Amino acid sequence: MSPEAETKHVTLRWLSDLRFEGGEPNGPTVVIDADNTTAPGPMLQLLLAAASCGGADVVSILKKMQVGLESLDVEVAGLRRAEHPKRFTSIHFIWTIRGTGLDETKARRAIDLSIEKYCSVLHSLAPDIAVSYDLRLG
Amino acid sequence: MSPEAETKHVTLRWLSDLRFEGGEPNGPTVVIDADNTTAPGPMLQLLLAAASCGGADVVSILKKMQVGLESLDVEVAGLRRAEHPKRFTSIHFIWTIRGTGLDETKARRAIDLSIEKYCSVLHSLAPDIAVSYDLRLG
Repeated sequence: MSPEAETKHVTLRWLSDLRFEGGEPNGPTVVIDADNTTAPGPMLQLLLAAASCGGADVVSILKKMQVGLESLDVEVAGLRRAEHPKRFTSIHFIWTIRGTGLDETKARRAIDLSIEKYCSVLHSLAPDIAVSYDLRLG
Repeated sequence: MSPEAETKHVTLRWLSDLRFEGGEPNGPTVVIDADNTTAPGPMLQLLLAAASCGGADVVSILKKMQVGLESLDVEVAGLRRAEHPKRFTSIHFIWTIRGTGLDETKARRAIDLSIEKYCSVLHSLAPDIAVSYDLRLG
């Protein structure tokens, strides 16, 4: 273990049915509902974690590129196995980004840097999950 | 692709700073804040997704075992790499479960079934992430 390695701690509490609430101790919390009715369920949260991880990277990288970001939306489609465990086998992202000073080269550079180097959620996923994306400049 | 395979869709929108909001189209949404100030960030959400996925399995399996579940809490510690990508290298769960008719054999059987067969979030993670757990009967 590297001395600089960081440990993230969360606690999760069962509420009722298949609903849970959790977060960092003494931090903000989120509700997760495995029935997907009152809140997104675990597999949706996994896709949202991947999209927001990439999103945070892209927002940060575009800012360094002097892009004036106006909007950023990500659609995510995750294909699951039909049999248990119903894990993801592929995840496809559609990025729609609008900003002043933004062009396709900058947008792709930001997304590729996230996928290849920075996105700690994507890099925590099984390497046989195929990750792909499309880009639309809004 | 199996004809029964399921695709999960989510959309995520950038709000401001490193804050995002998303969920299934027309479904409930969640906020994710990569600064971890107003909501849990992506790597915390990944741990919460894993814990709630396992939690939903355990709640369901204990119900089938005729256990009257009273409380279920999960503490999660995820160790990250110090270097980019700061992916998880190990995740440890501490399960605290209380219920009528519950004993250690039933609790471990439920948790082991989730880890080995059902938990689609854990099975979507890289197989070199070491997963371990402790159990406390409340």
